[in-house]
Formats: sequence, structure tokens, C-alpha cells
Amino acid sequence: MDQPSSSRPEEHVSIPDLTGVHPAWLPPGVFRAIGARRVLVLGDGPLTGTVRAEAEQACARHGGALEQDGTGSPDLVLALSAAAGQTPAARELLAGQGGSAVGEEGYLLARRDGVTVVLADDSAGLLYGLFHVVRLGEEAFTGERPAERHRPAARRRMLDHWDNIDVHPVMGQVERGYSGGSIFWRDGGPRGDLARVRAYARLLAATGVNAVTVNNVNVHATESRLLTDRLGDVAAIADEVRPYGIRVHLSVSFASPIRLGGLPTADPLDERVREWWARTTEQVYAAIPDFGGYVVKADSEGQPGPFAYGRSHADGANTLADALAPFGGVVHWRAFVYNHRQDWRDRSTDRARAAYDHFAPLDGRFRDNAILQVKHGPMDFQTREPVSPVIAAMPSTRLAVELQVTQEYTGQQRHVCYLAPMWKEVLGFGPWGADGRTVADVATGASGDGGGLVAVSNVGDDFYWTGHPLAQANLYAFGRLAWDPRLEPAALLDEWIDLTFAPAAGGDPGPLRRTLHALMDGSWRTYERYTAPLGVGFMVRPGHHYGPDVDGYEYTPWGTYHFADRDGAGVDRTRASGTGFTGQYPRPWSEVYESLGTCPDELLLFFHHVPYGHVLRDGATVIQHIYDTHFAGVEEVAESRRLWERADPGDPALHARVKELLDEQLRCAEEWRDQVNAYFFRRSGVPDARGRRIP
Amino acid sequence: MDQPSSSRPEEHVSIPDLTGVHPAWLPPGVFRAIGARRVLVLGDGPLTGTVRAEAEQACARHGGALEQDGTGSPDLVLALSAAAGQTPAARELLAGQGGSAVGEEGYLLARRDGVTVVLADDSAGLLYGLFHVVRLGEEAFTGERPAERHRPAARRRMLDHWDNIDVHPVMGQVERGYSGGSIFWRDGGPRGDLARVRAYARLLAATGVNAVTVNNVNVHATESRLLTDRLGDVAAIADEVRPYGIRVHLSVSFASPIRLGGLPTADPLDERVREWWARTTEQVYAAIPDFGGYVVKADSEGQPGPFAYGRSHADGANTLADALAPFGGVVHWRAFVYNHRQDWRDRSTDRARAAYDHFAPLDGRFRDNAILQVKHGPMDFQTREPVSPVIAAMPSTRLAVELQVTQEYTGQQRHVCYLAPMWKEVLGFGPWGADGRTVADVATGASGDGGGLVAVSNVGDDFYWTGHPLAQANLYAFGRLAWDPRLEPAALLDEWIDLTFAPAAGGDPGPLRRTLHALMDGSWRTYERYTAPLGVGFMVRPGHHYGPDVDGYEYTPWGTYHFADRDGAGVDRTRASGTGFTGQYPRPWSEVYESLGTCPDELLLFFHHVPYGHVLRDGATVIQHIYDTHFAGVEEVAESRRLWERADPGDPALHARVKELLDEQLRCAEEWRDQVNAYFFRRSGVPDARGRRIP
Repeated sequence: MDQPSSSRPEEHVSIPDLTGVHPAWLPPGVFRAIGARRVLVLGDGPLTGTVRAEAEQACARHGGALEQDGTGSPDLVLALSAAAGQTPAARELLAGQGGSAVGEEGYLLARRDGVTVVLADDSAGLLYGLFHVVRLGEEAFTGERPAERHRPAARRRMLDHWDNIDVHPVMGQVERGYSGGSIFWRDGGPRGDLARVRAYARLLAATGVNAVTVNNVNVHATESRLLTDRLGDVAAIADEVRPYGIRVHLSVSFASPIRLGGLPTADPLDERVREWWARTTEQVYAAIPDFGGYVVKADSEGQPGPFAYGRSHADGANTLADALAPFGGVVHWRAFVYNHRQDWRDRSTDRARAAYDHFAPLDGRFRDNAILQVKHGPMDFQTREPVSPVIAAMPSTRLAVELQVTQEYTGQQRHVCYLAPMWKEVLGFGPWGADGRTVADVATGASGDGGGLVAVSNVGDDFYWTGHPLAQANLYAFGRLAWDPRLEPAALLDEWIDLTFAPAAGGDPGPLRRTLHALMDGSWRTYERYTAPLGVGFMVRPGHHYGPDVDGYEYTPWGTYHFADRDGAGVDRTRASGTGFTGQYPRPWSEVYESLGTCPDELLLFFHHVPYGHVLRDGATVIQHIYDTHFAGVEEVAESRRLWERADPGDPALHARVKELLDEQLRCAEEWRDQVNAYFFRRSGVPDARGRRIP
Repeated sequence: MDQPSSSRPEEHVSIPDLTGVHPAWLPPGVFRAIGARRVLVLGDGPLTGTVRAEAEQACARHGGALEQDGTGSPDLVLALSAAAGQTPAARELLAGQGGSAVGEEGYLLARRDGVTVVLADDSAGLLYGLFHVVRLGEEAFTGERPAERHRPAARRRMLDHWDNIDVHPVMGQVERGYSGGSIFWRDGGPRGDLARVRAYARLLAATGVNAVTVNNVNVHATESRLLTDRLGDVAAIADEVRPYGIRVHLSVSFASPIRLGGLPTADPLDERVREWWARTTEQVYAAIPDFGGYVVKADSEGQPGPFAYGRSHADGANTLADALAPFGGVVHWRAFVYNHRQDWRDRSTDRARAAYDHFAPLDGRFRDNAILQVKHGPMDFQTREPVSPVIAAMPSTRLAVELQVTQEYTGQQRHVCYLAPMWKEVLGFGPWGADGRTVADVATGASGDGGGLVAVSNVGDDFYWTGHPLAQANLYAFGRLAWDPRLEPAALLDEWIDLTFAPAAGGDPGPLRRTLHALMDGSWRTYERYTAPLGVGFMVRPGHHYGPDVDGYEYTPWGTYHFADRDGAGVDRTRASGTGFTGQYPRPWSEVYESLGTCPDELLLFFHHVPYGHVLRDGATVIQHIYDTHFAGVEEVAESRRLWERADPGDPALHARVKELLDEQLRCAEEWRDQVNAYFFRRSGVPDARGRRIP
């Protein structure tokens, strides 16, 4: 998937060099190994200019030289296959591969006779190859390297921004944003800070992300107009991110034909509606030739959708898909559809069932360019959920798996919570079916043509991009996992540490590496310990979702309950006696979750209602587990705080910021511990076996 | 207390005659009895013009005549004592009273030989006398009436508006307002709808209210400037309400010397600060000669106060009092001071104790024109609280008792909740001390010079003034009780019904009277039944305070807990084993509340933590009482709804509005019932003895 020609193809690409913003994982020093060499860039194509400009800037900074043609003796050759003939090293590598490199967005990397060669079939691959060399640093220029083939596991690697143009009276500039304002919008219009947008694109390209949705899936009045009379604002963003291989997508309202087109209906099967979408989409592509497509949240939490017309979600998605198809665009259609006006008294309705009930029967009815975007769990980005059964239920539909980088329910970027281990568990979930599939297999598809991975971004106009400086690692890890779901969280953390902290430390972050691993490797499980026991979710303050409120959602219409009483807690989702949700899973999981004997403890209360005396696999009762994990979680945060006191990230301001946030994390963790323990102690009457204070 | 001369003394008073606004208790028909007569108004003085204009308009409408001098044979004489000599009927009445009528704001009413006479020493009294005749209607012109003396029990009868000028991002235009926008302010400036302001003043005068605070006690940036460069906005309101005997008061920020004066401090003992207040206050009186004074919320819920300078609240109040004294103004200093950042784990701190702990030691240290404004209960306007012990603890301080007409915690003007019975209980609370005092005695003072009654208004720019049409009765009853705390709620309801509904019904509201009594007389207790059992408060949704959330405030810093666990509920506030709050009461109440044997059941959980099996005086256990009252409360609402279906208030729109609100009330009452019952059933495990469904 090479990039369509840019609207400004010949322009010199300017590399953003921001002051007043943290460089994240691309401080100038990470280009030292490249910049100290003689570098040759060969080939044409829109992103080749970017590669050349990056190499040029690096060489200017670090004493190397950008060679102008293949006649010299470069240390590093970055060449499109079509131009490989211009220098021996590339020519030989290509010949050794049978004449073609590696396909869309991929690259070959090899080193022989003192020359490091990156070879790609398209300029996007060349750019990703460049960033691979950046990650390798000096290692890329040491010894011999047999040819390695790199290709993204999935062609679609997208970040969704829940950014509003108008500041929403409740949700603010960025819905569920914890990093200040939007990098795209402010107070009703574009920010105009395009250098920062480009710097963002560059950071994303270095991780492998290639698509961004620039506005909230909850599309309000002003935002809906991005599709028509405010399209120029989108085109301006597209111009900035294009040099880094990133396409722009747009969240649109299903009711656009009414809101914007003046039609009396948005019925997806109405010919006027279909024409309106076709014509409107044509205009979008006239302005943005490489436009990615639409994102739609329909019939969900108050957003309009096809149900109003008695149509299915396949009907809805296909109408938009048909409008996009002539231009190569896609529609991401979200499967997050449930009844948010549920009667809490009614224990037979189960929100966890909703997406499957709505969508599984539609398998095979979606167009090829309609991607069903499924949240990784059946509920809503809780700290611990099982994997959504929809992911295993629609083999004839292109599915994207949606993750949440922004830490809505996982500490809101005030808590350290490295999410890659959670995502890794999700992506590795399985196997099921005759071919032993996993979630990653579904997302990537047989040959990279799956729906891919999508995540809600955690970026804002904060100095550190992500509020909490360590939350940068989540953004980094998401991009890398979207490129290759087989990567290991601890290894990704090392990559991120090396890029972010090594240059300032003269190449080796030293003891900081150990501290960061100690703080971050287990931080998701630490967060789980001091917050939500055994798969229970939504014990958060309604509305803002920060901090504990055990009964906060218990008597609400949101379908998010734990049913704790004086005897026990949890939701019976079995087929035998509960809501039957377990039956939505394929074997063996339908059986694993159904039985108390096999259901994993960490999901126990998600699938079963058990007495507080129920004994877990480690021998502790449920109630004692609640006490123990809450005390332990707080201790772990306290230990992180102690470790960080002594850490030296080579940046006093960053050290101070993280220290301040760890103070808040500890305060909040203690609040969680005390409220959750007090709640369950008051309900159960069972004292802590170790006699600790429960208020 | 006659009104100082108006800034427009000679101007003709225009009677507001609004369309598009409900006339509340002054529909034109209530003036029929007066307007059909020959009326003589005698005397000068600022409000005499209002009395004359009212009589003139009434006569013009209903066929009577306003006589120009005492030479005719009037049916109704309204005369100042000084002018009583001008007509025989008034002269004789005055002579029979020994030459003086009845003092400030009072009036004499008599009927002899076919002439009804109202005689007053000041023009305010004449106006109140006029409205008395309005209330009497034809009865005022029937038979003979021996002379009756009427005087307000307290000279200070004030409504506080928690209206903001700028729309507050969380609290809106009116904090805790449930009747639309403000009648004074909109979107950052004055509404300019002065006819409505005057109509409001007229309604208030008809109840006896004589003071209004025009802005929120939480004084934000724009609002603080009403004291200085936006004073003209206040003067414009003062001009409109003056013809109805109403003074304007202003909520001011204690930090005004810093915010507005540019001083480095607001220390009340700093000479620059004292001078600033003196100078500023002088300018206020130059613009508004009859300005009432200041209202201050200091060191409370984030507002600045004297604690920052190590000064007492007496120091703070006295500095403002000294600035006001030369002009006859007063400062209302709120006693609502408590720690709103309490640790919920700490059971020794008791918010109920706070006002007493802060203020009782200061008794006798406040200036004569400093009025300590004390909320009627120790917490915050809950459905049921004991009376604040502060009221009995400061015999040498002028105290005002603060009520809340706006239904923040009592249904938010979506529920019928006639509050006069609650206020009546509060006012009648006692006796204590050697002279057997009651709350009403404290508020009125020995001779009407107590701090009086203050209430938070429930009025907004809604068509019905008060959101719920029946909530008008609360506003009416407050004014009347402030005038005379001995009045009975049911009788006040009759007055209100007669004024509001009788004219349209041709004089007799008929069966509507019974329906309204059935809906309203017991509505406060009905509300209590389906919401907060046995004196427990704050089981409401945090923030907006509407609808149930049993644990909503249980683990917060607000000091508002119920401590329910699997065994029992309630707050131990005894001296024997609890927070000692009972010791703040005088005998006998310190003993009555201390002992489980004598503590009234309706306050049981306010003062004691008891097991669910504790048996109440009626033989029911606490848990069964919770179930029973919640089922009963909902039944009562359902019955109200049935009754209203068949009612005819002579106004289809009003009928429809109340019907709609009763639907919501029933829905919400069911929600309260089910959530509270479910919560306590899940905690206690005790089934309902009558086997009803608890979800």
C-alpha cells in the first residue's frame, strides 16, 4: 500500500524541530549513529523525500554526509528496489532476494562488507526501514547482518483521537483525554500549530502507525461539518502527516445526510442517502486524495444509526463503504452497540452479550472495505475483561481490534500503568477453531489484510504529549504491536527506554533501565490489584471514571454491575444459571469460562457470582484475596515511589513530574484500597486474616 | 423600619402586568373585592404611592373608584396614622388605639359602620395591610370587625438568590436552581427584564418578605464586581423592588479588598482593609440609599475568610458591620463553616459539630448589626435533620435562621414537597433554657429585632416562577411564616389555594382544595418515606443531588456518612460512645438525643448507630421500617398522581405540567424505593416480612 501522490509531491520536507515540547522517543541523539555516516538514499516517491531529509538533518547534526549518487562509498544505503541498480550493495542484496524486496510497507535490512542496506519496494517501507536503523543505532553498523525481511503484520494501524473542535460542556476538548488540549483543535477551530502535528506524525511513523482519525467518534454539531464545509481543516492536517506515511480518517455522524445534506432521512437504503454519501465522499477525495476513510459510532450511547430505519448495521456500514470504495477508502464501523438505558433490576439483560447479539448474525454481510471495529473486551476498556467473543465469531468479516491507549479506566495518565502486557494477553488470546486462531490472527488477517489494530490515542498538547511522561511508552508500544503483535512488552519497553533516555545518558541509560522496568513491567497488574478484584469492573466514580466508587454504577442504566451483597459478589454469566454469555465463546473457551473449576481466577467475578468464602487456586478466599491484593497493590506503588526518588532520568523536570504523579498515584491507590476493603468488609463482616486496618 | 426615601420618590408607580408569566398568587381576580369598592388612600411616603396605584388599578379593572380625598363615603380606607384625621372612620379607629397605630411595618385592620379601615404608622405597613385585605377578599367587607393589630414577628425577612451573573461551568446560571435561568442575570450581565423583577417584588410583598440578596453566596469573579464597578446593576434592581418595600442585599467576597481593591491582604484587622470596606460601602450607599447590607460565606467550601489571617469570624463580620453601621446596613454572616476535606476514615470528626465548635465560643463578640445566619440543621438542608444546636447556643448574638425554599435535597421542584410543615417543626423546636425558648423566639428576637428568617429562593425565569407550579406554595409559605411563625401550614396552603386558584374558579376552588391538600399537606413526609429513612441524609447522587445513591457520599471528604454495614446503620453522635454532638444541645435535648430510649425515631440514625433489628416505637424493626416506608412512600405518590388526573385547576396547561412532573416523581420515587431497599437488603440479608419484591 504505497501512498498516493501527495498534493505537494516535490516540496522539500521540513523535519519538525520543536522546542517547548518533549522529544519523546525521537530526541536528536537517536540519529547519531546514522548522522555520523555517509548515507545514500536512492529512489523517488513521496516518502523518499522524507527519508532523504531525515538523513540530511542527521548528517548535518552529527558530522556525516548525505551522498548524492551511487558513485561514492556509503556506510548506509536506503534504496527503493526500483533504484537498487544504482549502487552495488543494494543491487547485490536485491539480486539475492530474487529481484523483489518485501512488499507493501516492508523492507529488507542487511549488512555486508561494511555497508548497511535498507531496501524497500515502496517509499513507506523505506521510511520504516530508516526508523529501524534508528532503533538499532550503532548496532546497525557493526559486523555482518544477514538479510532480514520486515513487513507489518497488518496494513491498518490506526489511532483514533476523541478530540472535539468545540469544547464539550462535559467532556471538554478531548473526550477521555488526560494530556491537556487537542493537538488538532482548540476553542472551536483548528489550532494551526502544524509543526506539532507533523512532529506527532513523525513520532507515530517511528512506531509504525499509518493512520489517524482526527475527531471524536461522538460527532457533535461542529465536528460533523468536517465532512463538508470544514473539510479544509482536515486537508491541512492531512498535508502535515502525509510526509510520514500517515493517512487521515474522519469520524462522521450517521445522520450526516440529515444534518448536513438537508435530507429528510439517513436511511442507508434510501437512494438519495446513498447518492449524498457518494457525492460527499467524492468531494472529500478531491480535497484529500489519500484520505483513509470514515469511522462511525452508530446506535451507540445516543449516536444515531440504522436502527431508526429498521436497517441492519451491515446496511449502514455498506452504504458508506460503497461511497468510499471507488477511492480505496474504508469505513471503520464500531461494534460498541448496547442498551445504555438498561433497568438495573433486570438481571437477565447482560451488556456483555450485546455486541455479539447485534453483530455475529451479520457475519459475511459486510463489504470488503467495511471494517468492523471491535473493542477488545465485551464491556468497555476495563482493567481486566475477557476478550470479546465477537472477535472469534465473524470469520467472514474484516475485523479491527480496538484498544485504548488513553488510560480512561487505568489511571488516567496520573498512574503508571504500562498497558502492553494487557494488550499482549489480548492479542495472544486463543486458540480456537480448527486452525487454532488467536486475536492477533484475526486482526492481521491471513496476509496482513485484516482490519488491523486501532487504539484511542493518549496524546494532547501537554509538554510530554501524554500527560504522564511514562505514558509515552503506551503510545510507543501500541504502534509497535500494531506492526508486529509478536513483540514482547519488556523488549518494547527497552526500545522505548533506549530511544527516550539513552542519548542524554551518553548511550546507556544504566540503572534507570532497571528502575523503569521495576516501575512499569508489572504496573498494569499493580493497578489491577489496588482497584478491581477478580475481573470486576466499573467500581469507578461515574462520569469522570477516576478513583473508586464501588456502588457508583451498581444501580444505574449502564449495564455495569457487580451484584455484591453480604454473602458474595460477581455476575453469573454462565449458561447453566446466568445470562448465557459464556455460550458466545467458541470451544474450548465456552467450557473454560462456564465452569468454576476452570475459569481463570482473574476473571472469576466477571463470569460467576461466588460467596466470599470461595477458595481461589492459591488457597486464599475471595474476601481475603480482595484484602491482600489491595494492600499489596498499594505497597507496590509505594515501592515504585521509593525507587523513583533515587532514579536519574537525566532530566530534572521529568523526574519532578513523575515524582509528583507518583505521589498522586499513591494517594489514590490508598483511597482505592481503603474504600474497596471497607466496602467488602462492611458487606461481608469477615475480618482481615492478617489483622490489618480496614477503615 | 420605614423605607428611606426612594431615589425616585414622586414617580408614579407602575404595577407590573405581565403576560407570558404565571401570575402565581396575584392573578387580577384577587383584587376584585377591593376593586369593586370606593377606596380612599390617605398619607404620603414612598410606598403610599404603591398602595394608591394598586387600588387605582384594581378599581379600574373591577368597577370601583379611587376617591381623591376624605370628603366622600369610602368602603375602604387605607391611611397612614399621620393622615388619619382626614376621614372620620380612620380618625375614630386611631383615637380608639390611643393615637398610634402599631409600629414599624404593622397595621391595624377594623370594620365599623360599613367602612373597612387599614391604619399604619408607616407606608410599608399600609402596603402589607392592603395585601391583608386582598387575602380576605369579600370577607373584608362583611359585617363588623373589631380592631386587629398586625405586626411582623421579625423585621428581617429575606430571600437569598444563589444566582450567578456568568453561567458557572458546573453550577449554571442559578446554583441549585430548578426554575430555569435567573430573573436578574443572564450570560454575564443583567437580564434587563425589569418588569419581571418588579412583579417578583410584588409577589414577595404580598407574603411579607422585605429583603432580597441578588447574587450567589459563592461569589465568583464577575459577581464580586457588583460591589464596585458593576454596582449600577444592583441599583437598577433596587429601583424596581423598592416600591414594594424590598431592600436589596449583596453577597460579597471576603477577599474583595484583594480582588477589587488591589490590597495585599484582606485581614479584617488591617487598617487599610477596614478603610477599604468603609470607603466602598459609602459608595454603595451613595448609589443605593436603602441598601440592605452584605451577605458573606467565608472559610466555607473554598470561599476565602478570616482564618487565613488567624482572625476569628467575629473579627471578619465586625469589620464589615462597622463599614455598614453608619448607613443602617447589616451583614449576614453565614455560620456554614466546616471542613469539606474530611478523611472519611476518621470517625471522630463530625461535620454536624462544626458550626457550633466554630461559632458558639464567639457569642457576644459580634456587633449589633452583624447577623449570624445559621442553617436550620447542623448539616445542609437534608430532608430530615435535627435543629442546629448553634441556634440555642448564642443568646448574645443576633441570629437569623436560614431555610431552603429551593428544593435541593427535597425533589428539586420535580417532586411535590410542601416544606412549610418542616419549617414549622423547625421554628417550633424547643423549649430550652429558663424562659422556654423556641427557634422562632431566637429568630424573631424579643421585639422583632432578631436576625429573622432567611431562605434560599426557588425562583427563576420559568413560566411558573418555581419550575413546579405547586412549588409556588413553598415561596408563599416562607414569606408568611417569616412574617408570623405561628401560622399553620395547612392554613397557609388554603391562603395560597384561594389566591392562586379561586378567582379562575369563580371564587371557590371547590374539590381542587381537597386534592391539593391531599397532594401537599403530607408531601414532605412522603418524600422522606421514599428517600431518607430515620434521619439518614446524603444518600443522593453526588454533585447534582437528585435521585438516590446510597453510598454516593459515603467515602468522600464531605463529612456526610451513614456507616451502614451488614449489621446496622447510623452515626453515633452520643457523648457516651460517639462524636459527642448531642452535648452541643441544651437540656433537655442533650439528654433526649443521647438516649436511645428517648431519641425520636425520625432522627434515630442521625444520632445513633443501631442494628437492623432495633425495634422502633411502632414495633417495627429498623430494616422493616426501611422497607415499609419506601413501599408506602411510592404508594402515596401513585395516589397523588391518580388524584391529580381527576383534578381541575381551571388551567389545562398547569394541569398538564403537574401531571408530567408527577410522572417523573413516581418514576424517581420507585428508583429511590428500589435502590434503598436493594442496598439494605443486600447488606442485611433480612427479607421483607411482607414478601414484596426487592430487586
